[in-house]
Amino acid sequence: MKPLDLPDVQSGPPTQNFKISRVGVTGVKKLVNIKRPNSKTIHPLVVKMDLFVDLPAFQKGSHMSRNLELLSDVTDMNIEKPVSDLESFCAQVADHLLKRHEYASCSEVKAEADYFLERNYPNGKKGFEPYKLVAEARANKKDGVKKLIGVRVIGMTACPCAMEVIRKIDGYKDSDVPPTHNQRNITTLMIEVPGENKTVDANDLIDITENAFSSPTYAILKRKEEGNLVYNAHKNPKFVEDVVRDILSAILKKYKNLPDDVIVIVRSESEESIHKHNAFAERVTTLGELRK
Amino acid sequence: MKPLDLPDVQSGPPTQNFKISRVGVTGVKKLVNIKRPNSKTIHPLVVKMDLFVDLPAFQKGSHMSRNLELLSDVTDMNIEKPVSDLESFCAQVADHLLKRHEYASCSEVKAEADYFLERNYPNGKKGFEPYKLVAEARANKKDGVKKLIGVRVIGMTACPCAMEVIRKIDGYKDSDVPPTHNQRNITTLMIEVPGENKTVDANDLIDITENAFSSPTYAILKRKEEGNLVYNAHKNPKFVEDVVRDILSAILKKYKNLPDDVIVIVRSESEESIHKHNAFAERVTTLGELRK
Amino acid sequence: MKPLDLPDVQSGPPTQNFKISRVGVTGVKKLVNIKRPNSKTIHPLVVKMDLFVDLPAFQKGSHMSRNLELLSDVTDMNIEKPVSDLESFCAQVADHLLKRHEYASCSEVKAEADYFLERNYPNGKKGFEPYKLVAEARANKKDGVKKLIGVRVIGMTACPCAMEVIRKIDGYKDSDVPPTHNQRNITTLMIEVPGENKTVDANDLIDITENAFSSPTYAILKRKEEGNLVYNAHKNPKFVEDVVRDILSAILKKYKNLPDDVIVIVRSESEESIHKHNAFAERVTTLGELRK
Amino acid sequence: MKPLDLPDVQSGPPTQNFKISRVGVTGVKKLVNIKRPNSKTIHPLVVKMDLFVDLPAFQKGSHMSRNLELLSDVTDMNIEKPVSDLESFCAQVADHLLKRHEYASCSEVKAEADYFLERNYPNGKKGFEPYKLVAEARANKKDGVKKLIGVRVIGMTACPCAMEVIRKIDGYKDSDVPPTHNQRNITTLMIEVPGENKTVDANDLIDITENAFSSPTYAILKRKEEGNLVYNAHKNPKFVEDVVRDILSAILKKYKNLPDDVIVIVRSESEESIHKHNAFAERVTTLGELRK
Repeated sequence: MKPLDLPDVQSGPPTQNFKISRVGVTGVKKLVNIKRPNSKTIHPLVVKMDLFVDLPAFQKGSHMSRNLELLSDVTDMNIEKPVSDLESFCAQVADHLLKRHEYASCSEVKAEADYFLERNYPNGKKGFEPYKLVAEARANKKDGVKKLIGVRVIGMTACPCAMEVIRKIDGYKDSDVPPTHNQRNITTLMIEVPGENKTVDANDLIDITENAFSSPTYAILKRKEEGNLVYNAHKNPKFVEDVVRDILSAILKKYKNLPDDVIVIVRSESEESIHKHNAFAERVTTLGELRK
Repeated sequence: MKPLDLPDVQSGPPTQNFKISRVGVTGVKKLVNIKRPNSKTIHPLVVKMDLFVDLPAFQKGSHMSRNLELLSDVTDMNIEKPVSDLESFCAQVADHLLKRHEYASCSEVKAEADYFLERNYPNGKKGFEPYKLVAEARANKKDGVKKLIGVRVIGMTACPCAMEVIRKIDGYKDSDVPPTHNQRNITTLMIEVPGENKTVDANDLIDITENAFSSPTYAILKRKEEGNLVYNAHKNPKFVEDVVRDILSAILKKYKNLPDDVIVIVRSESEESIHKHNAFAERVTTLGELRK
Repeated sequence: MKPLDLPDVQSGPPTQNFKISRVGVTGVKKLVNIKRPNSKTIHPLVVKMDLFVDLPAFQKGSHMSRNLELLSDVTDMNIEKPVSDLESFCAQVADHLLKRHEYASCSEVKAEADYFLERNYPNGKKGFEPYKLVAEARANKKDGVKKLIGVRVIGMTACPCAMEVIRKIDGYKDSDVPPTHNQRNITTLMIEVPGENKTVDANDLIDITENAFSSPTYAILKRKEEGNLVYNAHKNPKFVEDVVRDILSAILKKYKNLPDDVIVIVRSESEESIHKHNAFAERVTTLGELRK
Repeated sequence: MKPLDLPDVQSGPPTQNFKISRVGVTGVKKLVNIKRPNSKTIHPLVVKMDLFVDLPAFQKGSHMSRNLELLSDVTDMNIEKPVSDLESFCAQVADHLLKRHEYASCSEVKAEADYFLERNYPNGKKGFEPYKLVAEARANKKDGVKKLIGVRVIGMTACPCAMEVIRKIDGYKDSDVPPTHNQRNITTLMIEVPGENKTVDANDLIDITENAFSSPTYAILKRKEEGNLVYNAHKNPKFVEDVVRDILSAILKKYKNLPDDVIVIVRSESEESIHKHNAFAERVTTLGELRK
């Protein structure tokens, strides 16, 4: 059968000549295999992705089916030769996006996945706690690919202010640990991973974030362990501002080798137990800014 | 112009002769005016609604556009003569659904709306706190209309167990208030409103629910008020089970006049500060069961 | 170190003597390994779970940490000896819940997981499409464990009514395929799996559901394949009512061996392209009812 | 009673000396009254808000309770003297944020509200369709306040590509309207409103956005009206790229009087009926860029 010469509507001229900043697909679900450099285990991740390129003023539409084709190609390559991390996977996809959309000057990829990391539970056993991995890559024809890896971590914050007020009002001594309001906090930490750098590991980012809370949280806590966790959290009260700053400080110490232009993003949100609204703090910056 | 005789596909026979339990539309947004019996103020509510009827085995489709037409008719009537409450509005709509779908034997309406109620803030001023109203009505040709009104309320629970464990481990005296984990709790209370009964008021349901928490929560709390609220919440620790039971107990006291077959639903969920998951308790019952 | 005799607040008496229908934890995330009977591959599923038991009137609280402990135990067993399906995993957990909460008379487990199934793409290649698995198990001391497996599937529905109206108004011939509105549809199918029955397979449920749409949908569609899919969907127009009924019919044919009391649940929701609200149809029934 | 000198923990020094880009509260619900310039009607809006300021490196915490106090003050003023629009309300709040946080150099306010606008239904009657209003304001001590108003609108897009492919493959003539896939589309349009400018009206933004779809959508459509709407939508096929560009074009025509530095943001997302993922296009720009 002779193939029909099918119309290519996307390649035609648009009725209005404006370029588009980002065109693509959102909410694509893919199974992505990750193999950490020093590990034999394959981590299969259920990844939710967005893929974009820009579109010049002279072209009606972006060929979006190419986004899905190349994503499948990269994923298939990935089964034979798993990538070492989610940000490298995003960078590969961003690179292919630029190549397959010859009219595009830049591309962008976002990914988010459930992730489980083994923790030492207070009862001495080990268990897997749930986290989120978040990754991004942006490519353009001049500067190549930029990639970021990040984590979203749930922990606990205990309010320093209410604690000191209660200490004063209700006559707790300096050595006492008074009650305060505490709550679930969700914190996101993202950092740029320059080029072939191998020193940034999502597991370290989880450690850094979890250490910045009043306390990490665990699925399994028997009575004594729960009591200890809560008591220790009260000896380590934190505002959302403190969580953000303590992460920034830990990042500076941990990544002395990374260059000044590396992007760092920290967002912390406490689902306040005393309010119906949340408390929020955010810093978007570079390592260079933080080093000043 | 002579009207075309348009095909009525819905009224034809289906390819498979099964009846359908519920057919209709979901996520319909409407502005509904409520005028409380002893008030001159109109409360405009942004209501999100679901409307269903059943469908017999011999008919291909339900005429869903009728659901929207009758909803508009009831809403229009409602502008001239506002209903006294959201559950009566739902009951009116359920009644019209049965009439307009002559093939249906039952109908169901669900509604949810943001709602603001004036509270006395700890600083002595008054302010509006946000709540949710939830209402349902079910009608069938034999038994008439059944309607329920409910509220969704955010409050604070402080854990009784961790508190007593910390008291013991860390040597707090019986007269002391030790720390414990506390968190945001979301509780839903629904109750059937029989016939023309005028004694059930959503504001009372909010009061009952808010009183069952360790503490209600407020948008505005200056330092001293925050300290007092947190301290008092710790003197009133509650499991989700306690929240549910204390609401059931208050319902029994408040609604002595209501008959035994009145449905009562209570659901309480605590967004645990020490875990990444929630704690949950629920009772679905009747006043008669509770009175035993 | 001599262990402290820690207070067990949960085991004490409540202030209000009401039993609780369901107490437990919601939103627990776990990695669960599934190994299909005739397969060597392990499918790791990221599962979101709710676990409940009932609570008698005389006891203040449910020991919720036991829910997480036993879930870990079952998951650990599961690493050595993977279960064959998600509903059996839920049944195991429901069974353990009853054993570990000696005061409970019934238990309930719900689970939901992303799932990928290989499909033949219209371009002749193979690719993985995303679905959801949903499972439930309920146990009580008298009747043992009941379990259900289900799937949530996204497909496309094209409206039969608008198509016939356009055929008439705009003069399309009987042999023509006129335009109509079509949209994304999300359909959930659940069925009870009695005892040790091995004939129910989630992959079959996905097939049954996908066949009931106007068309299945695919991540990758080049121009010709997209044209064919859309054209074929228009030759197979479906209301949500049709989707539900065609699934019920296929279930009856597929599961002739299953007993009459097996529960069947079908829910179909179309995100109508011509409205801001959705169209919805649902049947909750048993095989026996359907066989009448 | 002599007031206690309560500790002001926020005003103390932080343990880590980093400034914070944004600190504040999210998810605050408020009832805001809007009175349009040429109207006597008060529009009460249920508004969901985020309020932020920055925080210098030397201060431990932001006094978040001030955010809620000033929001209440502005809302109270607003009851006596309603603002003309949501963006002016946000600007007032942003201005107060800067004044009440004397240590802050900038502030930011975001707001979102359900909104109903009367439309002429195809049946000749009038009805209210649901939309979203979105507004933002940013203030800093040097440059004063910048504010944006926007709308989120649901409409229908019919794919131009599948239509032309089907025309070719299935032998439709040039004068025919072949079928194509169509779906629900959600588009957001935001524009900066400079200073005291009174020419930007959210209702116009809704008109502009709705006109850029293949067709607007309505709650009530009887058979003939539904057929006409679907047929007309097919005579006006649109990619997400077209929706974005047609809005940009209409904005240029409508707001010739606005200066070059005015920010314009357009985002369009189609919930593709033939895929499980969405199609997306976005342009973030200024009027000056568009005028080039």
